[in-house]
Amino acid sequence: MYLAKVYVTYKPSILDPKGEAIKDALHRLDYENVAAVTLGKYFEIKLTPGEKPLAEQVDEMCDRLLANVNMETYRYEITELEA
Amino acid sequence: MYLAKVYVTYKPSILDPKGEAIKDALHRLDYENVAAVTLGKYFEIKLTPGEKPLAEQVDEMCDRLLANVNMETYRYEITELEA
Repeated sequence: MYLAKVYVTYKPSILDPKGEAIKDALHRLDYENVAAVTLGKYFEIKLTPGEKPLAEQVDEMCDRLLANVNMETYRYEITELEA
Repeated sequence: MYLAKVYVTYKPSILDPKGEAIKDALHRLDYENVAAVTLGKYFEIKLTPGEKPLAEQVDEMCDRLLANVNMETYRYEITELEA
């Protein structure tokens, strides 16, 4: 069994109002040293080896379902889980 | 400037209906080898050194704002950004 950790974040040019709101909330909680916050999605996908290489499959999953490639960018790591 | 990468995920005992829905969608896209999907949040926080150690601050931010500690668990990494 393998574990793919997928991180989906907005492209730098895209406004992130939730991240801004969290930054403001942290400032109100007196964390004045916070300069910027961005909010993304984090997927953990457990999968078994398929017909294609796993990295190719995870790439496809991101492009087709997990990320909106117009606005978002993604990266991932794949690790083998101990049985 | 430092970058804190914060990962917030549901505790294992908590139902994750969005993760289940994504797993089902991946199965419909013929990724039958996907065994489980969990959906979490991913924060990138840029911050400058404050009065307290950064790790202590990030811990506090998670407990107070970023994670619902009744249902969620978190982990983070702090790295120094090049100037």
